[in-house]
Amino acid sequence: MKGEKLDTIKNLIRTIPDYPKKGIMFRDITTLLADATGFKKTISGLCEPYVADTVDAVVAIEARGFILGGAVADRLGCSFIPLRKKGKLPYKTFKQEYVLEYNSDTIEIHADAIKQDARIIIIDDLIATGGTAEAAVKLIKLIGGEIIGAAFVIDLAEMGGRQKLESIGVGCNVLVTY
Amino acid sequence: MKGEKLDTIKNLIRTIPDYPKKGIMFRDITTLLADATGFKKTISGLCEPYVADTVDAVVAIEARGFILGGAVADRLGCSFIPLRKKGKLPYKTFKQEYVLEYNSDTIEIHADAIKQDARIIIIDDLIATGGTAEAAVKLIKLIGGEIIGAAFVIDLAEMGGRQKLESIGVGCNVLVTY
Repeated sequence: MKGEKLDTIKNLIRTIPDYPKKGIMFRDITTLLADATGFKKTISGLCEPYVADTVDAVVAIEARGFILGGAVADRLGCSFIPLRKKGKLPYKTFKQEYVLEYNSDTIEIHADAIKQDARIIIIDDLIATGGTAEAAVKLIKLIGGEIIGAAFVIDLAEMGGRQKLESIGVGCNVLVTY
Repeated sequence: MKGEKLDTIKNLIRTIPDYPKKGIMFRDITTLLADATGFKKTISGLCEPYVADTVDAVVAIEARGFILGGAVADRLGCSFIPLRKKGKLPYKTFKQEYVLEYNSDTIEIHADAIKQDARIIIIDDLIATGGTAEAAVKLIKLIGGEIIGAAFVIDLAEMGGRQKLESIGVGCNVLVTY
């Protein structure tokens, strides 16, 4: 995606200082999603690296990742697999704990969510330390998926998440960087 | 949407008995979302009543509503507005408490989410008692939106939510009924 379009996306993201705590510059994508053109460009940007590829499923991370992942899966004509917070999925799951920017948490995936060797992309709104995304990678591999990439609207570059994912063999596409 | 397509959607929904508690037949849409054709038909079914209309924004309810609402907003070329659980939105919000099937809860919307008189559709995966959807209606009206309808994959008909919404002037479209 070209620079001008990416500038449009970045200009629509609202920065909220000191949220959720003092010293954090929170990048709020709700203003981007609320702009019909900005939303469409965002989904196009997330899909772009994969449109010529074979993608069997989008794995999206709760909750903002669901907004983007649903639209990406619909555009690519593939399955949608939710990765959810602990206790939210009703069937047999696998769990993975992880440390994130402000605390620690657990995500889960349905044990039967993915067909063996299914080609998967991971979608979330933001990559910071990469803790959540790394947990997603572990869970997808555990249940037999092949990860062909991960796409995020925002990369908080100083936090090193992108490098962490690339060091375990997962190529990242990001639309805007802070 | 025709009966045969709706049967496909219903057949892909998994029923989990006694979840989250004894006596509840939980309707699990993850198996529907995991089927690429079923997912696409679901999004088409949710959009169908509105494609010839002017829709300015989809308001979707966290968290499963996000998966569907993101894809619907992308298809209709409109804005996406998230309605979130308490404490999840970073900017100034309005809150609405509601009683749902198993407990009570609070949802929030950003105070500046909607332009005055914007034409809104509400999207969620399921309507049961209609408590959450009614809270959504109140919040959207409070911040100046005009609601042109609400669409759900599943209607748990015995719980009366659809009638509740229609009694306050919100027409409902549902894909499958239990």
